[in-house]
Amino acid sequence: MTSYTATRTPPKESFTDVLIIGAGPAGVMCANALNLAGVKVRIVDKRPLGLAAGQADGCQPRTIEILQSYGLAEALLKRAAHVWKAVFYNPTSDGGIEKTTQSPTITAKSARYPFGATLHQGGIEDVILESMSKHGLEVERSTIPTSIELSDAADEVKNAGSYTAKVVLEHFDREEDKTEIVHAKFILGSDDSIWGVVDMVPDTDFPDIRCQAFVHSNAGTLFVIPRENDLIRLYIQQSSTQDIIDPQTGRIDKDRTSPGKLIEQGKKIFQPYTIQPKDGNINWWTVYAVGQRVAKQYSINDRAFIAGDACHTHSPKAGQGLNASMGDTHNLAWKLAYVLKGWADMSLLKTYECERRKFAQDLIDFDKKWSKLFSGKPYSPDNADGVTHEQFLGAFTEFGGFTSGVAIHYDSSAIVDASYQHLAPHLVVGERVLPQVFIRAADALPVEIHDLLPADTRFKVLVFAGDLAVKEDRSELHKLAEELDKPENFVCRFGRGETGRREVFDVLCFSSAKQDKVDYLQFPPFFRPHYSKVLFDDCDLQGRSGGGGYVKYGIDDHAGAIVVVRPDGYVGMVTRLDGVKELNRYFGSFLL
Amino acid sequence: MTSYTATRTPPKESFTDVLIIGAGPAGVMCANALNLAGVKVRIVDKRPLGLAAGQADGCQPRTIEILQSYGLAEALLKRAAHVWKAVFYNPTSDGGIEKTTQSPTITAKSARYPFGATLHQGGIEDVILESMSKHGLEVERSTIPTSIELSDAADEVKNAGSYTAKVVLEHFDREEDKTEIVHAKFILGSDDSIWGVVDMVPDTDFPDIRCQAFVHSNAGTLFVIPRENDLIRLYIQQSSTQDIIDPQTGRIDKDRTSPGKLIEQGKKIFQPYTIQPKDGNINWWTVYAVGQRVAKQYSINDRAFIAGDACHTHSPKAGQGLNASMGDTHNLAWKLAYVLKGWADMSLLKTYECERRKFAQDLIDFDKKWSKLFSGKPYSPDNADGVTHEQFLGAFTEFGGFTSGVAIHYDSSAIVDASYQHLAPHLVVGERVLPQVFIRAADALPVEIHDLLPADTRFKVLVFAGDLAVKEDRSELHKLAEELDKPENFVCRFGRGETGRREVFDVLCFSSAKQDKVDYLQFPPFFRPHYSKVLFDDCDLQGRSGGGGYVKYGIDDHAGAIVVVRPDGYVGMVTRLDGVKELNRYFGSFLL
Repeated sequence: MTSYTATRTPPKESFTDVLIIGAGPAGVMCANALNLAGVKVRIVDKRPLGLAAGQADGCQPRTIEILQSYGLAEALLKRAAHVWKAVFYNPTSDGGIEKTTQSPTITAKSARYPFGATLHQGGIEDVILESMSKHGLEVERSTIPTSIELSDAADEVKNAGSYTAKVVLEHFDREEDKTEIVHAKFILGSDDSIWGVVDMVPDTDFPDIRCQAFVHSNAGTLFVIPRENDLIRLYIQQSSTQDIIDPQTGRIDKDRTSPGKLIEQGKKIFQPYTIQPKDGNINWWTVYAVGQRVAKQYSINDRAFIAGDACHTHSPKAGQGLNASMGDTHNLAWKLAYVLKGWADMSLLKTYECERRKFAQDLIDFDKKWSKLFSGKPYSPDNADGVTHEQFLGAFTEFGGFTSGVAIHYDSSAIVDASYQHLAPHLVVGERVLPQVFIRAADALPVEIHDLLPADTRFKVLVFAGDLAVKEDRSELHKLAEELDKPENFVCRFGRGETGRREVFDVLCFSSAKQDKVDYLQFPPFFRPHYSKVLFDDCDLQGRSGGGGYVKYGIDDHAGAIVVVRPDGYVGMVTRLDGVKELNRYFGSFLL
Repeated sequence: MTSYTATRTPPKESFTDVLIIGAGPAGVMCANALNLAGVKVRIVDKRPLGLAAGQADGCQPRTIEILQSYGLAEALLKRAAHVWKAVFYNPTSDGGIEKTTQSPTITAKSARYPFGATLHQGGIEDVILESMSKHGLEVERSTIPTSIELSDAADEVKNAGSYTAKVVLEHFDREEDKTEIVHAKFILGSDDSIWGVVDMVPDTDFPDIRCQAFVHSNAGTLFVIPRENDLIRLYIQQSSTQDIIDPQTGRIDKDRTSPGKLIEQGKKIFQPYTIQPKDGNINWWTVYAVGQRVAKQYSINDRAFIAGDACHTHSPKAGQGLNASMGDTHNLAWKLAYVLKGWADMSLLKTYECERRKFAQDLIDFDKKWSKLFSGKPYSPDNADGVTHEQFLGAFTEFGGFTSGVAIHYDSSAIVDASYQHLAPHLVVGERVLPQVFIRAADALPVEIHDLLPADTRFKVLVFAGDLAVKEDRSELHKLAEELDKPENFVCRFGRGETGRREVFDVLCFSSAKQDKVDYLQFPPFFRPHYSKVLFDDCDLQGRSGGGGYVKYGIDDHAGAIVVVRPDGYVGMVTRLDGVKELNRYFGSFLL
């Protein structure tokens, strides 16, 4: 015994910049982004394996755009089902249901990907996990934090380089070093909770089984989400939720129902159509907990953060859960990277909470309205207070921008400055950039502007340069090039990187000139460290895409504008072509 | 010594369905296609390694379409440079050059991919080699056939199952079984020859260096092909070809020139622009052999075939080489698979030579005209017989369909029957199907018809069903479903496959109805073994793609048509919706 104690070694101690607890959608999104940004990051999860199926499973258009900014949309879209059409069924007078109308699933016109992508949560996580793995980062599984200590000494909290968190990890799958003490500069908690559904391959004569179908019947409400591999998911409204709540604890008790019960209920709602699981097989099922609360705090001293379901749980009916979680850490990751690299002041981190809390509150407000409409009894002569189909469809269309994620709007802050919004009224400051195809000047390649805005932690400075075929516009642009090249201005002052000053800023130049009027060498050399950086607002040579970008963005063909896009793809500010001072002020307020 | 002889074992003997000699573009295209079709195939090559760079490197639009039919376009397009724009420079009176006009590189309007894709030949081969490898097939390298014997016994030649070829292989990289005797049912020779060029990253003030630039100057002719990784390739006309021909052998002697000499020549042509290799680096160079001949025979007894450069060499100037080679074996592979599986008569193999020889002859005729224009001295007041710029541009546009590969036309044969062409005048029998987006009936997904025509060795029977919202059209379609289901008709008679009779035929149904008028269950059950098989000719719900397919193909909205597409994507025949007898006759003429 004595001997055993004597040889027992103290737990291994280690150091990391960021420790992420929980490998759900928020956690893996953050881990991948930080890893790509060159930040030292670890991610642990209590589960021994990744998810094989089930749980939240819809990627809204903005989430697909975000994944695209990490180069991951293609992998997602190849594996997911694409949902294009929503249909609405309502009660008939003889006790059945009938289709009343249909609508595109995505009503937001500006979505680059105008459909929803459905894939089980494990599949969506896999897309990100594969990217992490390719770049040398793996989730440490079967690992639980048994203790978390945070220093609140003011000098340490203010110093981005201090290891303010001390976390004890237990690695249940290891033979040695089962206990480890990790010192981290920042920690993130992103543990995701569970919702529920029935997944199956259906045997049915319901003609819209491969659409996103909202079915209101007098026997209850359900909706259908088409899935990959011919699966569908049914969300079935529980007519009497009391039945499945344990009266002792107030919590959902899954043992109080069964997939058979859920399907029986679904059959009644679908009448006169019939439905049953093919060969009696249920792929997965559960009952889900709906909570509607926002965490009081998104962070402690801007050193320990929470994200995803850990800070907002809500109804899955609008397919928001995973999207909100991934949006949270997409917002946070670049800010952490800037602070850890010593490029930005700690104050930048405050914008995480204010931007994402407002969004979460909007989400919950939306969800309450939506849930009420969705769960309400339909209108009928006997139920004059019921929800009319028109109310339901109106909400569906009205909230289209919100549910698709493309209309998310961040309020004014150090990194959101709308003073000169009028120069580009449709590139809304605080919102994501509208997709648009421009033509590369050197080789006539049509390029979607989103593909020029990867989440590579750089600010993109988009110079809408006016018409290079016009002498005055050309001379204005040469003046701007001269200004931007001066050591006292932001590109040099905050630019970092020894070669070419492009580590913090990527400068892209878009002329309103037509491609047969000007060639790429007429852009000042400052704007073309590589030929791919200068483009025209023109149609491609086959007339299939492009053209009208200045008009779409509301930018004057000659006066132009400079648009700053944040590393997460949101417009940070707009200014005039001679507004280098404003740019200096903007970047000077948070960059070091 | 005696002991050595006594223990020496006889060479290993083995058996395969197809042995391919040469892993150039034609060889790997064939090997991959046969492997995917489930045919036992081996491929050997004399080179110890795959190509790292150099050699033919342009994929024309039709070749991209073909690669897409094997699921490989994405991998190619991600790695290749995309060439959109062609520009034309001509002499000025003061001895310099100037840009006279520009054109889309691809003038064929119907190309699905309206650009050229440039990537070194090794990179293009890699795309196919990776697919082979994923499905368990590797090239056996450092391997040379030292003897080939072909049986010409009539009974063996006629029997697809006979091992008519005996090939002795020497494996230079093996320790054991260095000599092997392979017995093969069929063999293919596809050894590719070498052409030449200069590859480099340029340092230049020539403004169109990232375009496909054709430069005629009084100092000579050259053209530019933009490449991946900022490389360009220059093809420089040799002003005095005699200089580099060895007078003893009549063959090209690379030692008689140098990259320096080639670049000096290029500099003169580019004047007044300047050009030089960046940092003096030449990536790769060679001089190419141009031969213009068609092999007398494409096969011996339809048991030993040749493909690619082995049967037609020609000028690389139109970027045809690799495209013609891959087109050859794309044409051959499904035919070999049908014969080897016992699905088709040996006579099917005759169509390989007649289809591809005609194409090769067209290619050479084209190449002669093109080379003459390209190599001719430009027109000037002093040279009234010279080629005018208008002649050159006219040829460029006129031959656009041919150079892009989309206008390749196969003449009438057992598998090309144009009797009812008038029912779908723009789906030309003997040509590839025009790209068009249709809308999947069950879930409103927009689908490019090319993605429904993979090279999976199945014939696609496209039923253009008329308007299902119209009673007469619906009843006509139900009659067709009944006919197709009868055991005496072709689907059952030649269909193979125990489950669902879909191993030889894939039946797809396209209604001219709008998607809000009809639902997918109104297609007769015969046409929807899976919901993805029935589609509408309509716009997608976002109005971004689709619609007008019947008009584009020239098919009547109500009368409809049945269109047979061969496994290689070429239209085989067209008939009426009540033309099952014609279909029986067509398939009966070559299927068993």
